[in-house]
Amino acid sequence: MKTLSILIFAMLVYTTASAQQALWGAQEIISPEIHANNTVTLRLMAPEATKVEITGDFLPTQITQTPRGESEVPGVAALTKNANGVWEYTTSSPLAPELYSYVMIVNGVRVTDPNNPYSMRDIASVTSYFIIGGGIGDLFKVNNVPHGTVSRHWYHSPGLNITRRITIYTPPGYETSNESYPVFYLLHGAGGDEEAWMALGRASQILDNLIAQGKAKPMIVVMTNGNAGQTAAPGESDRGLYKPSFMGDTRMDGAFEAAFPDIINFVESNFRTINTKAGRAIAGLSMGGFHSLHISKEYPDKFDYVGLFSSAIGVSQQNATSPVYQNFDEKLRRQFATPPKLYWVACGTTDFLYQANLDYIKLLADNNYPHVYRESDGGHIWRNWRVYLTDLVPMLFR
Amino acid sequence: MKTLSILIFAMLVYTTASAQQALWGAQEIISPEIHANNTVTLRLMAPEATKVEITGDFLPTQITQTPRGESEVPGVAALTKNANGVWEYTTSSPLAPELYSYVMIVNGVRVTDPNNPYSMRDIASVTSYFIIGGGIGDLFKVNNVPHGTVSRHWYHSPGLNITRRITIYTPPGYETSNESYPVFYLLHGAGGDEEAWMALGRASQILDNLIAQGKAKPMIVVMTNGNAGQTAAPGESDRGLYKPSFMGDTRMDGAFEAAFPDIINFVESNFRTINTKAGRAIAGLSMGGFHSLHISKEYPDKFDYVGLFSSAIGVSQQNATSPVYQNFDEKLRRQFATPPKLYWVACGTTDFLYQANLDYIKLLADNNYPHVYRESDGGHIWRNWRVYLTDLVPMLFR
Repeated sequence: MKTLSILIFAMLVYTTASAQQALWGAQEIISPEIHANNTVTLRLMAPEATKVEITGDFLPTQITQTPRGESEVPGVAALTKNANGVWEYTTSSPLAPELYSYVMIVNGVRVTDPNNPYSMRDIASVTSYFIIGGGIGDLFKVNNVPHGTVSRHWYHSPGLNITRRITIYTPPGYETSNESYPVFYLLHGAGGDEEAWMALGRASQILDNLIAQGKAKPMIVVMTNGNAGQTAAPGESDRGLYKPSFMGDTRMDGAFEAAFPDIINFVESNFRTINTKAGRAIAGLSMGGFHSLHISKEYPDKFDYVGLFSSAIGVSQQNATSPVYQNFDEKLRRQFATPPKLYWVACGTTDFLYQANLDYIKLLADNNYPHVYRESDGGHIWRNWRVYLTDLVPMLFR
Repeated sequence: MKTLSILIFAMLVYTTASAQQALWGAQEIISPEIHANNTVTLRLMAPEATKVEITGDFLPTQITQTPRGESEVPGVAALTKNANGVWEYTTSSPLAPELYSYVMIVNGVRVTDPNNPYSMRDIASVTSYFIIGGGIGDLFKVNNVPHGTVSRHWYHSPGLNITRRITIYTPPGYETSNESYPVFYLLHGAGGDEEAWMALGRASQILDNLIAQGKAKPMIVVMTNGNAGQTAAPGESDRGLYKPSFMGDTRMDGAFEAAFPDIINFVESNFRTINTKAGRAIAGLSMGGFHSLHISKEYPDKFDYVGLFSSAIGVSQQNATSPVYQNFDEKLRRQFATPPKLYWVACGTTDFLYQANLDYIKLLADNNYPHVYRESDGGHIWRNWRVYLTDLVPMLFR
């Protein structure tokens, strides 16, 4: 056999052969570059472009006028072009620990950063992201700690009469122990799916890190698809590679809540679980908070831990005749006759659902229903939901 | 409680709240649009751009000059702008069934299509993709068939002295049966990782579909990380969100091959497997073909099915003193003293490794080592490797 040297092999693959790599012309540029002081530089090679900007949630917000009044949106910053055709922007000050999302705007077109291979999808929008470590940022990183197993299963739901995809995290040591574990059901919001908490919520990193730090009990985390009419996340079902739309598959009609026991049955049949109220938690964001509220009250003997993150409390169900929504006060009274060990409500002060959450807290207080309320800055955003997850998880199964 | 109607809730979330969605300004445009006759339209809203093009593997290739001679690259097509600022391109003829990759070029900058949320990463390059169904394209789609479970585990490798990530597909029915299953070890090429066969190779879709059609035996598929110095795919390890580079983590020095029994031990300890030579297959592309060649000869009693896809046969190991590479002819003779049931070699006729593969086939033939050789058009590209996978899988474990 003739032999090629390994260096020539590398060169040949790189320059003539590997289609995706060579053809799509990756730029030899580092972007984002996170400096030692936590300022960040974004770069783009674009000699022919006449304007390059970025927008991202690390920039100061700005106010824009909308038909319904003022609205806050992330600011836009201009990149400046050097002699080599490279455009560059460096943040004016160090960024606080956080996961940040951004896009570049090339001659008016919003695109992901072609030098950053890490992106996340929210409905149909894909954004680039980076993480500033330290503080809470370290919880979002993959660290050198034991890692859980993340699996995507399909389960049959007799209640919905479809077979559906579900994401399940089992903690480090699950495979090698004979123990049974408590289960945390973690629900997404409208427009989300069984991938949302993994991608946008950094759930597996947060769990790995909190468990490694001894701050959370080892637990199974079950991330469902809360869209009753959807079998799986966009791109993962036989609907093919369609463009997702907001509320396109969302039906807040009680069907998901009514069929929730199918999920519990699947999980408890296929994993080593603690099948008691004390071994189950449920929480969700926005629509998922609404789901968690209704599921926990509908099955009052099932969950000892309930978390409502920026919940869509107070959303009325026009034409929703599902029994799930009937006799609300009576069912809540029944749930709190043997109250959950923890009923945790959190909301941002600028969330459009803030007042509805305050109203709900008042209802709980007026009835002496035990609960914990946690308020934070900011609105209806993933930054808050990641924080709420890191707050809630250490309190579960204690 | 005050109640919001569900429509107002949707409007509020969409227009004022959901940061990623509202802010990054998803365009209300469909791209790609696959027409009934399999022509495809790509679109981009870009009123301020002065030039918008695409390049993709569905366009006729063109010849460019490189320092080492002529090289074939995908063609570039211009989009034309309509009065509304929308740029558009429709393929001149229907596309054959296939998974196609492309990027848009906005004023000279190569970017993913912002209206297409589906992309795949090859080393540091991210490209948009779509699938034309019918024929082989249907094997790459998620269809309404039973689906296997895909999980990402971490296993300890005593041989490499690191804990590493691994992707494992278990077939439909695995969880509900008590059967043991054969195991197919499927290896990536240089620059790849334990995600490559899932993302670029559509391995779980191909397996689901071939099993559903009765063309493949239900089997476990194990997708390893073949970079001995790497714990996990870029972004999935404590190296953080770095920009991957070609051959950056590739060490073809025998360490991966020598430690391969660690993977077999992990799989056979954690899954219901058929632990015999007849129950094991190994195949890989490029560097993974080189690995499969050496692993199967190094452990001649382990694999009854060997697949070498566009293998990096003939790559010499400069400074590689690993015993894995010593006494090649003698070890091959020992392997073929009790030959595998199938030793399958495939290569594209324009692959830069074509001649090396022909030389190897001649060596096998000269020694009367039973093997099957399969040649295809094209070069060192994923299109071929997906086809080879669909060819090989039905022949395994028969």
